[in-house]
Order: sequence, then C-alpha cells, then structure tokens
Amino acid sequence: MPRVVVHVMPKPEILDPQGKAVAAALPRLGFEGISSVRQGKRFELEVEGEVTDEVLNHLREAATTLLSNPVIEDVVALEVEEGRA
Amino acid sequence: MPRVVVHVMPKPEILDPQGKAVAAALPRLGFEGISSVRQGKRFELEVEGEVTDEVLNHLREAATTLLSNPVIEDVVALEVEEGRA
Repeated sequence: MPRVVVHVMPKPEILDPQGKAVAAALPRLGFEGISSVRQGKRFELEVEGEVTDEVLNHLREAATTLLSNPVIEDVVALEVEEGRA
Repeated sequence: MPRVVVHVMPKPEILDPQGKAVAAALPRLGFEGISSVRQGKRFELEVEGEVTDEVLNHLREAATTLLSNPVIEDVVALEVEEGRA
C-alpha cells in the first residue's frame, strides 16, 4: 500500500515556542552548535490503491485544509513512498 | 547554514489518537481512500558550521534523547540539507 508523507512547518514569520524551548534545552543538555530549532508535524497517510496525480492533488488539498492551519503553517512537502508491503 | 531535519514517529505498536482523529475526519470532509493516518513530528535544526559525521552522531543522540521519547517514539530519519543561505 503506497504511503504519502505530508510535512507541515510553522510559517517562517510565526513564533515557534516549542522550537525555542528545544533550542534552549539543547545546550543545557550538552548539545552545542545549534543556532535555531523549529518544530513541525509529519503525517503518514496509507492510501488505498494507486497514487495518481488526481489523488495527489486531492491529498494536497486535504493537507492544506485539514492537516495544517494555513494561517500559521505551510505544507512544505508531500512525498510518495511506493511499493511498500 | 546547513540544516538537519529530524523525523520522529510514534512506534508502530503505540496507539496514535491524533492520527486516528485525522483518519476519522478525512472521509467526513470528503477525502476518501485513506486507510490509516499516523502523526509524528518534524524538527528543523540550523547547525553552526559543517555537519561532520561526529556532529551528526551527536545530533542523532540528541534526537533520540531530547527530541523524541524513546519509550513511545522512533527517530525514523535524520536528513542533512546542505548549501542553504
């Protein structure tokens, strides 16, 4: 069954308190050299049947309306992973 | 500045209520043909300097200890994006 992976990130101009918290915690825990962290979401969708261009366009619409909040988030990538069991 | 992208997903045996909620909402909103959804996290880390193997191993350790909860989550991928502004 093919899988479509949707990557969602906060828009660059939006403050990301989760990312900031991680960035602040890293040096405290001994991990230096990271100047910035941003946290987003990753969705794995198992698709029934073939992923045609039509299905992908449909999923892109779902990604921008349901999986992300278009006011504060961008869908940065939509990847198809074919040929899985 | 190079960027390292860390992908974290709930372990396969762990229930994913967020993913289940999304999977249930999709058909209600007119998106059919998705059999399962799982929701994870995506972190973008801006790294100061070059991403050597040593830095990457260090970041992998950070990813498994700080960016994910190893009891319920897996770090499924660690990607390096070089040559960014």
